[in-house]
Amino acid sequence: MSSSRVDRLAERLQKQGMESALVSSLANLRYFSGFTAAIETGPSPFCPVQALLVVVRGEKPLLLVADCESVEGVYEEIQIETFASYTIETPVDSISALNAKLSETIGKLPAGLIGYESEALPAAVCEALTAKCPQLQLRDISELASGIRTIKDEDEIEVLRKCCSLCDIGQEIVKRRAQPGMTELELFAEVRKGMETAEGGRLPLLADLVTGPRTALVGGSPTLRKLEPGDLVLADLVPRHDGYWGDSCNTCVVGDPSDEQRTCFEAVSEILQQAIESVRPGLCACDLDSFVRSRIQKLGGEFPHHTGHGIGVTWHEEPRIVPYNLQPLEENMVIALEPGVYFSGRWGIRLEYVVRVTSDGAEVLSGFKHTL
Amino acid sequence: MSSSRVDRLAERLQKQGMESALVSSLANLRYFSGFTAAIETGPSPFCPVQALLVVVRGEKPLLLVADCESVEGVYEEIQIETFASYTIETPVDSISALNAKLSETIGKLPAGLIGYESEALPAAVCEALTAKCPQLQLRDISELASGIRTIKDEDEIEVLRKCCSLCDIGQEIVKRRAQPGMTELELFAEVRKGMETAEGGRLPLLADLVTGPRTALVGGSPTLRKLEPGDLVLADLVPRHDGYWGDSCNTCVVGDPSDEQRTCFEAVSEILQQAIESVRPGLCACDLDSFVRSRIQKLGGEFPHHTGHGIGVTWHEEPRIVPYNLQPLEENMVIALEPGVYFSGRWGIRLEYVVRVTSDGAEVLSGFKHTL
Repeated sequence: MSSSRVDRLAERLQKQGMESALVSSLANLRYFSGFTAAIETGPSPFCPVQALLVVVRGEKPLLLVADCESVEGVYEEIQIETFASYTIETPVDSISALNAKLSETIGKLPAGLIGYESEALPAAVCEALTAKCPQLQLRDISELASGIRTIKDEDEIEVLRKCCSLCDIGQEIVKRRAQPGMTELELFAEVRKGMETAEGGRLPLLADLVTGPRTALVGGSPTLRKLEPGDLVLADLVPRHDGYWGDSCNTCVVGDPSDEQRTCFEAVSEILQQAIESVRPGLCACDLDSFVRSRIQKLGGEFPHHTGHGIGVTWHEEPRIVPYNLQPLEENMVIALEPGVYFSGRWGIRLEYVVRVTSDGAEVLSGFKHTL
Repeated sequence: MSSSRVDRLAERLQKQGMESALVSSLANLRYFSGFTAAIETGPSPFCPVQALLVVVRGEKPLLLVADCESVEGVYEEIQIETFASYTIETPVDSISALNAKLSETIGKLPAGLIGYESEALPAAVCEALTAKCPQLQLRDISELASGIRTIKDEDEIEVLRKCCSLCDIGQEIVKRRAQPGMTELELFAEVRKGMETAEGGRLPLLADLVTGPRTALVGGSPTLRKLEPGDLVLADLVPRHDGYWGDSCNTCVVGDPSDEQRTCFEAVSEILQQAIESVRPGLCACDLDSFVRSRIQKLGGEFPHHTGHGIGVTWHEEPRIVPYNLQPLEENMVIALEPGVYFSGRWGIRLEYVVRVTSDGAEVLSGFKHTL
């Protein structure tokens, strides 16, 4: 599947006069090569560039990868070469090692343009390339490369289903385990343990977990705040599985909701339902946003964020479901829709499902039910 | 305290003919400005550059920071200006917003050299800078800037003490909770919950947690493997608190150790103890490595990694305690020492403490006791 992705890239490059490109953003590395970078502890002290994919039209794509990184999951059709990162024998200088391999690889290319991601390649690589391969002229392909990703392939949709099923597990645990007296952090620990057990390993996890008046803040990380009877619990769970991100949000209550909370929950739930029913190819992102925004506004609270966003190898990407976006939805886009309403100083409710745009509507990939 | 750090930087810059510099690596941003970036979910889809510190000799340092990032912890003496990252009103283009602010700020500087971190600044920023501020010539200062960090200030040592105390909590939980029948992931969830409760919030956490024969592999993430009686449990816990990293490793046993394991544990523990006693200013990193390596080799297993490394705003930095490193230790360096021995296919033991080099020896910052 990756080979067709690289082919699509090569085709688009050629239309713009390029026979080759360097892919270096972690998102596009995952998409085109299957390489999934370790991310949870920040930039590696051993290699500021963990990997670089060299695409030359008509040739096998080559992944240059730091020798301290895992290549598990890299597609079969990708050739792999490592460069030295950390050893106990020589000082750390992985960028020089990468640059040496890179100039060896592309030094032989004929004069012309070479694509690169200018926002995701350190100056140190570009400068070496310019110095050692003066026949090549760099041209930014950030939008061209990321633009290929908005419509998902079948195998991507399968991975996203699995991501959503991990969210389902997390959301069920929130509903089952939220109890008065426990802290947000304790609840979060249960949720993450359940999701990691289902995954069979650690999961990078973006998460809002806020309770009580904190739900009015839209989001935030779990704290030592203790749950009280009647508190709302807003959990937005965004795990990364196999290099793809799931997304989900539910708002439930510890004990019994007030009438106002119940009415509001049902209204948001209905707006989400109607929004999903309105999804189809051709619908403009801004019209979907406006559909939701106008209805939420009638509930009287604030709605300070987007209606939704694409999801895939990043946790937030095109098509963004926002007021300015004229992009029409297309079949096999996968988007998260997340209407919410927030009453300053009191509480907030947000409900989110991930949906796939089908040929004539939408398929909900999220499996859990929104229940208060 | 940060102002003296920036002053030190300015002084070193001046010696190399530079009156200004851009700091962009997350580690140096933390060190010089107090800005602590969110890292656990990878590069932000909203801003490939989360922040940039502009240092001009004799002027107040200016932090340009994406408006979706938290500035909690940024030092008082740093001026803060935000640039637009994600809004629902306009398409995401934070690099252009950053570049506009940057050229506005440094466009007025007189002709000369400007320092930058070539491995930690995307080409897109350098190119804009070169185009819009042609009077400035970029010069790499990666080593110069990071070199300032090897000797820790008093306030850094206090933060590192706190990081180590979080490690202590984690290590005590491993010893107390490891039971036959539980999975590595379940044990890990308990450990992380305890550490995050002590922190009062989420903690970025690098960790090896391996049990039984997996301990022979040096390290690895927790899995669904179930602990069995007699298993060794190797836990290397590396949390980030307030932008600084702690480090720690213990190896304990589920139930009773074999005589061989006990003998080996005691030998490694004694080697670590002797190594700590040998630490003093002037001792070369390579001699400390050789001291440990020669003793470990007598135990008959493998020792495929470093003896230790500096720790601070990164989890692995100079001085690296490795065979090639001629750097002498200096007072107030903070280093992790971690002798280990591994018997292929069977088991491994590693013990680690963090120590501060004092005027005439070493102070152990780790508080937990190594017990099998």
